[in-house]
Amino acid sequence: MREDEGLVQPGGENPEGHAIIDVATMASMSGLDYLRAMIRRELPRMPIETTLGFEIVEADEGRSVFISTPGVGHYNAIGTVHAGYTATLLDSCMACAVLSTLPKGTGFTTMEFKISLLRPMTKDTGPVRAEGTMLSRGRRGAVAEGKLTDSRGKLMAHATTTCLIFSF
Amino acid sequence: MREDEGLVQPGGENPEGHAIIDVATMASMSGLDYLRAMIRRELPRMPIETTLGFEIVEADEGRSVFISTPGVGHYNAIGTVHAGYTATLLDSCMACAVLSTLPKGTGFTTMEFKISLLRPMTKDTGPVRAEGTMLSRGRRGAVAEGKLTDSRGKLMAHATTTCLIFSF
Amino acid sequence: MREDEGLVQPGGENPEGHAIIDVATMASMSGLDYLRAMIRRELPRMPIETTLGFEIVEADEGRSVFISTPGVGHYNAIGTVHAGYTATLLDSCMACAVLSTLPKGTGFTTMEFKISLLRPMTKDTGPVRAEGTMLSRGRRGAVAEGKLTDSRGKLMAHATTTCLIFSF
Amino acid sequence: MREDEGLVQPGGENPEGHAIIDVATMASMSGLDYLRAMIRRELPRMPIETTLGFEIVEADEGRSVFISTPGVGHYNAIGTVHAGYTATLLDSCMACAVLSTLPKGTGFTTMEFKISLLRPMTKDTGPVRAEGTMLSRGRRGAVAEGKLTDSRGKLMAHATTTCLIFSF
Repeated sequence: MREDEGLVQPGGENPEGHAIIDVATMASMSGLDYLRAMIRRELPRMPIETTLGFEIVEADEGRSVFISTPGVGHYNAIGTVHAGYTATLLDSCMACAVLSTLPKGTGFTTMEFKISLLRPMTKDTGPVRAEGTMLSRGRRGAVAEGKLTDSRGKLMAHATTTCLIFSF
Repeated sequence: MREDEGLVQPGGENPEGHAIIDVATMASMSGLDYLRAMIRRELPRMPIETTLGFEIVEADEGRSVFISTPGVGHYNAIGTVHAGYTATLLDSCMACAVLSTLPKGTGFTTMEFKISLLRPMTKDTGPVRAEGTMLSRGRRGAVAEGKLTDSRGKLMAHATTTCLIFSF
Repeated sequence: MREDEGLVQPGGENPEGHAIIDVATMASMSGLDYLRAMIRRELPRMPIETTLGFEIVEADEGRSVFISTPGVGHYNAIGTVHAGYTATLLDSCMACAVLSTLPKGTGFTTMEFKISLLRPMTKDTGPVRAEGTMLSRGRRGAVAEGKLTDSRGKLMAHATTTCLIFSF
Repeated sequence: MREDEGLVQPGGENPEGHAIIDVATMASMSGLDYLRAMIRRELPRMPIETTLGFEIVEADEGRSVFISTPGVGHYNAIGTVHAGYTATLLDSCMACAVLSTLPKGTGFTTMEFKISLLRPMTKDTGPVRAEGTMLSRGRRGAVAEGKLTDSRGKLMAHATTTCLIFSF
């Protein structure tokens, strides 16, 4: 399990120029405060957000939204967006929907997710929106759902995830 | 379903500088010939391979292997590799395991995959290997399994996928 | 794949006393007509409905509902309902949501489903309702979602499925 | 989450005639001792084992095997075995693979499973065997895999599950 190995990573700017938040900073805030600081850009973006081109734009109790615009750099061999891009957006919005419910001093780790690919995306799809919603939360686990829609609200992909919750 | 919208994309170099294979080229080769041409670099790499830094290195009937080395550019907010990176590698090796079994004139599309995250990865993990194996294939569908291991063979993540098979 | 081996089964009453519909009858009706004939009891119930105690009560285009009441006969070793019972109800309502959209002469087969268990059920849970809704359908595949709720509408379990569609 | 509501159930024979183990008995044994007592029939079978006709026959550290013979009572509407039967066997063997690794005083709950249906089963399939194997275990979670095979070793269905582990 991911929780059994050290997540601790020194904060600040690293050699490759990516800013990583240290776990101490994360543990000192509630999940929702943390996400809102990210949205206000008071905390650095996730490195993969820069690599793949997506960002968080909304967070509420049990809900988070990421946006992105698919491009050729996300393509598989046959000229459509690779499912890994879709999975990255959906995993992000589901994980942050869970994170948004966590009090200070609580962490989580994603155990698994499943993604269903409903429609292909190309560079002509335009902006997409990945919205995560928590379906259920217990003391030690949470389940969330994610929906990726195009600008007309058409459902392009669907996902569910299982997260494990723990105290720092 | 992804198969219901046009997958056709003009081949050749596109504005962003990524080479996309046209579907006609793909339809003219068996899946295994196609993958081996990719491995020999006679066909362009997938754009997302360049974006995320991974590549196909082996393909046999019902099996394919991709390699990569996780880095800070793949990180989530807390200094570990984002599950989207893991999903991209696993989806690739499972899809190509299915593709490797398809005769000329046959295509496929990924309907869904599930990924289980067993151990966290960081930039210190070193090279990883994602191996896809087909578990079962019928006339219209296929199921494959994917395993992501580190350089000592430790299982870091596991996945299964469902693909739909069709004639061009 | 299930579709590659013969689904044909002689209809009528069989030795064990269970009535099985022959595929010819099924192929002669639209999916929705078939489900509504089952609801009106003009067609026999599925044998497993009798074995486990559940039944279909509603069907519309892209939607179906099954009901049941969990009892001790559904229990696992520790005095809660076994997840297999939950999976049976959810698979049924999702598959029938897909079936309800199929024209005469069209069949389907379930390729996979994932089920998330949100709350435990016992014999004190009372009647539960499993509602399946189709999320997306192409020419060759469909994706559906299922929700199992208790009598107060509390979500007890969630599922998604991938089905393959074909002509008889 | 299932762990948040009381799992405690009075042991002994209940009104419907099913024997339920009390949680105190379960908490007093290691998982493997518990499973082996079940195999030796020193502990009652799970009620659903009787309802659906299956039983545990092997348990080792990280592994368990259930057997069953599909019959008409497990059928769906079209004369093949309902996926709920398949799911019940696979969930059982995966959950018990995890349980077999738990020390005294430790419990677990299944959060989710995914099942892929590779080949149809009928009453002519003969005896089947569901073998669960743990893929990974941390302090708070575990992932297991399940394979359902026919008497010639042909893979009929595949599954993976995520379990949450906790102290009583």
